Amino acid sequence: MAYNFFYYAPTEVIFGKDTVTRVGELVKKYGGKKVLFVYGSERIRTNGLLDQIEASMKEAEIPYWLLGGVVPNPHIEKAREGMEIAKKEGIDFFIGIGGGSAIDTAKAIAYGMTDPDKDVWELYDDAVKRIPSGCYPVAAILTIAAAGSETSNSSVLTNAATGIKRSYNSELARPKFAIMDPTYTLTLPDWQTESGCADMMMHTMERYFVQGDTMEITDTIAEALLRTVIKNAKILHKDPQNYDARAEVMWAGSLAHNGLTGCGIHAGDFACHLIEHELGGLFDVTHGAGLAAIWSTWARYVYKDCLPRFVRYAIEVMQVEPGETDEETALRGIAAMEDFYKEIGMPTRIRDLGIMPTDEQCREMAKSCMVASGGKKGEAKVLYEEDVYNIYKAAL
Amino acid sequence: MAYNFFYYAPTEVIFGKDTVTRVGELVKKYGGKKVLFVYGSERIRTNGLLDQIEASMKEAEIPYWLLGGVVPNPHIEKAREGMEIAKKEGIDFFIGIGGGSAIDTAKAIAYGMTDPDKDVWELYDDAVKRIPSGCYPVAAILTIAAAGSETSNSSVLTNAATGIKRSYNSELARPKFAIMDPTYTLTLPDWQTESGCADMMMHTMERYFVQGDTMEITDTIAEALLRTVIKNAKILHKDPQNYDARAEVMWAGSLAHNGLTGCGIHAGDFACHLIEHELGGLFDVTHGAGLAAIWSTWARYVYKDCLPRFVRYAIEVMQVEPGETDEETALRGIAAMEDFYKEIGMPTRIRDLGIMPTDEQCREMAKSCMVASGGKKGEAKVLYEEDVYNIYKAAL
Repeated sequence: MAYNFFYYAPTEVIFGKDTVTRVGELVKKYGGKKVLFVYGSERIRTNGLLDQIEASMKEAEIPYWLLGGVVPNPHIEKAREGMEIAKKEGIDFFIGIGGGSAIDTAKAIAYGMTDPDKDVWELYDDAVKRIPSGCYPVAAILTIAAAGSETSNSSVLTNAATGIKRSYNSELARPKFAIMDPTYTLTLPDWQTESGCADMMMHTMERYFVQGDTMEITDTIAEALLRTVIKNAKILHKDPQNYDARAEVMWAGSLAHNGLTGCGIHAGDFACHLIEHELGGLFDVTHGAGLAAIWSTWARYVYKDCLPRFVRYAIEVMQVEPGETDEETALRGIAAMEDFYKEIGMPTRIRDLGIMPTDEQCREMAKSCMVASGGKKGEAKVLYEEDVYNIYKAAL
Repeated sequence: MAYNFFYYAPTEVIFGKDTVTRVGELVKKYGGKKVLFVYGSERIRTNGLLDQIEASMKEAEIPYWLLGGVVPNPHIEKAREGMEIAKKEGIDFFIGIGGGSAIDTAKAIAYGMTDPDKDVWELYDDAVKRIPSGCYPVAAILTIAAAGSETSNSSVLTNAATGIKRSYNSELARPKFAIMDPTYTLTLPDWQTESGCADMMMHTMERYFVQGDTMEITDTIAEALLRTVIKNAKILHKDPQNYDARAEVMWAGSLAHNGLTGCGIHAGDFACHLIEHELGGLFDVTHGAGLAAIWSTWARYVYKDCLPRFVRYAIEVMQVEPGETDEETALRGIAAMEDFYKEIGMPTRIRDLGIMPTDEQCREMAKSCMVASGGKKGEAKVLYEEDVYNIYKAAL
C-alpha cells in the first residue's frame, strides 16, 4: 500500500530567458531589505550576469553585498565569512548565484544568522547536530543544473579543516524564489554539465531503488524524468550550446530533488550519496562524477536485494531487452547505465576520477560514512561499515 | 524553443491515512485564529470526518464555524452567505472540506473578505472583473479527487440567479495546506469517481494540445500522469474500495492542475473547459462528465490543426498502433479515448448526460462562452462563436 507522504515545494520558479532582471522585484515581494549575494567564480562579472543583477537591485533600491569565492564542495569557512558580513551590515536575505555550492552556502549563512553567535558547523557536525532557531529567507539564481538546491530543502557543506562533508536538511531553507535562465548554462564545460546530469539522475534514483510499495504515478514521473535527462545529456555532450537541451536538464534538476520523485515511498536510499560525500570531502571530487563512479559498483552489490526495482529500471529507463531471468535483465540495465556514463564522459570507477584511495583511506571513509548515517544506510539494501568498505574497494 | 514559464505550487501537502488529525496544528502553523469550514453534504457528520476535524481543532484551541450545503457547480450565493458569517465572527482562515466545489467556495469567501462590503461575484463577472484586494488564507481537506483546487490557483463559481458559471484564477488563492486522505474517497459513487478522473485528465490535456514548442520533460510527465489515471480509473470502476488506486488518482488530480503539466508551453487550450462551463451553468451537469461528453467532438473538430500533438497523444497515451497516415493515427487515438470513456461509464455525447439543449440554447451557450473568453478561445485551434456552436451541435 502507498505510504503516507509529505510534499512541500513552495519555491516560486521563474524560468527562461532574461528572467534575472526580475531579481530586485522578487526580493521586494519576499520582504528582503538587505541582500547578500553568494557566488563562486568571477565569471559572473564577465558574462553580464552580475551587471543584470546589479541593475535590477538598483532599480528596486535594495542595498546588497557580494561574497564570491565559493568553491565546489563548498566550505563552512565561507559560510562563516558570510555570517560576519551579514552581522556587520544587518543583512536579512541571502541569494546564491550558481549551482548547489553557492546556494548551499547561502542556506548555511541563512541558518547561521538565526543564532549568530554560535558556530554554524554545529548543524552539520554529527557530534553536535544543533537545530537552528530558524532560517532567514534564501533565494537562488541558478547557473548550473545539478544539485537541485534551488528548490530543495537540502544543503551540503564541507569542513575544509577536517575534510568532513555533511548535509543538513530542513523545510525552513526552501528558497523563496529561483530564477532559472538556461542561457547562463550554455558555456558550462562538458565535465560540469555531465556531472550535473549524473547528480540529478542520482537524486531520482535514490528515491527509486527502495523496498516496499511505491506509487505508479511517482514511478512513471521518475522514469520520464530519467529518460529525459539521459536523452538531453547525450545531446549536450555533442552540442553544449543547445538551449532547449539546457532547459530540459535545468528543469529536470529541480524536479529531481524537490520531493516530487519520492512521493509515496517509505524512504529514499541515499547510500550512494553518503558514500560519495566521503570522496568529496577527502579528495574534492566533483559530486556528480563521484556518484557516477560509485553507482554501478553499488548497484551490483545490492541489486539482488531489490530485484524488482532493478528490473523495472532496466526496462523502463534504460529500455534494454529483457534477459532470460530477472537477474540478467537487472544486470543488463546496470551495464546499459555504465555505457551511458561512458558515452557522456562520466567515470564508472573511482580511478577514473584521477584518484586512488589507499586501503586505509577506504577504511576511514567507510567509518566516517557510518558516523554520518548513524551506523547503517540504505533502503535498497541496508549497508554497514564493512559493506561500504567493500564498495569503495570494488569501485576502485 | 521552450517558452519561458512560471511555476508556483506552494501548498504543503499532507497525504495519506489519518492525516486529518493534523488540521488544528496546521491552522496554527499558518496563523489562523478563527476558521470557517465550508463543505457540501452532511456525509462528513456520519463518516467520522467531522469528528476528527473537530477534535483536532479543539486540541489546538482554535475556534471554528461550519458552513454546509455547498452544491456541485457551487453557487456564489453560498460564498456570500459565508462572508456574512465571517464578517460577524471575525473569521480569518477558510478551509474547504470536499472537492472543488467546497474548496472553490472557500476561495471565493477568502477573496471576498478582503473587500467585505463589495459583492464577490464582481471577481467572476465578465462585465466587472474586479481585482480583489487580496485573499485570506485558504486550505483544503480533500475528499473528492477531481478538480485539483487543493493545490491550484483556480476557483469556479456559478451565479445561481443567472446560470452563469465563471472562473477566477490568481496565485493569491493557492491553499496553504492540503490534507489528502484517500480513505475518505473510498465510498464515492462511481459516477463521481469517474467524472473526477475525466476532469483531472482534462486539466492535463488542456495543456497538452497546444501549438508551438513544448518541453520533453513536461510532455513525458503529462503522459505518465494520463496513463496512470487511465489505468486506475479502470480499476476503480470495478473495485471502488481499492485504496492504492484511490491514492493514485488523488495525487494525480493535484499534479494535473498545479501547473506542473504546463511548464514550458505558450498557453493552455482550455476551450473544452469553457465550452463545458456553459453546460454546467445552464444544466448543472457534473463537470468532469460534461468535459468527457464534449471532448471527442472538440477533438475531431480541431485535430487537423494540431496534428503532431494528436498523433503523439494517440501513441504515447492511448498506445494505439500507428495508422498509415498521421490523420489516421490521430483519429485512432480519439476513438480509443472514447472507448476508454465508455469503459468507465463516462458520456461521449451531450445526450448521454440526460440533457438535450435546444438549438437556441446552443446559440446562447456559444455566445456566453465567447463573453467569458473575450471573443475567441483555444490554442490547439482558435475557436470563435460559430465554432463553439458547431461543437455543441455536433456533440449532441
